[in-house]
Amino acid sequence: MEVRRVQDLIRFSVEKMLKAPLFESPKYFCDLYCLKPGQDQRIHSHAESDKIYFVLQGQGLFHIAGEERQLESGEAVVARPGQDHGVRNASGEDLVLLVFMTPRP
Amino acid sequence: MEVRRVQDLIRFSVEKMLKAPLFESPKYFCDLYCLKPGQDQRIHSHAESDKIYFVLQGQGLFHIAGEERQLESGEAVVARPGQDHGVRNASGEDLVLLVFMTPRP
Repeated sequence: MEVRRVQDLIRFSVEKMLKAPLFESPKYFCDLYCLKPGQDQRIHSHAESDKIYFVLQGQGLFHIAGEERQLESGEAVVARPGQDHGVRNASGEDLVLLVFMTPRP
Repeated sequence: MEVRRVQDLIRFSVEKMLKAPLFESPKYFCDLYCLKPGQDQRIHSHAESDKIYFVLQGQGLFHIAGEERQLESGEAVVARPGQDHGVRNASGEDLVLLVFMTPRP
């Protein structure tokens, strides 16, 4: 059985946000994003993919299609195809996100 | 911004497991599954889809491709295309799962 335990996969770098793969297929990615305070995923977009962010731990400042909003543990947001999106850890605590993207870009 | 707050969407029925939609597109579903003690999603399979279960709250007894395993909050598992899969709340507490399936069956 392909089981993943999030607490075993969380890892941070002082240099940049780290991604830890949970599951994937030719059709999707499911990753953890781990951000120390001040780290970010820069704003970008995918022409055909949806990306779902689910906040597992901490608080993230999300930018989606020109709108900014702080989301916390238990909140989720989607970036639709073509929408600019990014996230920044503007808090003083570590941030861990569960991220699904389909289709793969 | 399409934000969902899990705590606002969790709902249970005494009759059966309830699904609450979070996000979807023609390519995927992302839902909450809410199971009272004793409730289950019966074993079934999808020929072409991956289904990822992420345990948000409680403990679930997962059956995947003939193997059974109890998973708890912070653990995730995937059922690959064609693999029999199901989940049962064999605990005494409510169970809440975040579920991602792509492609849509």
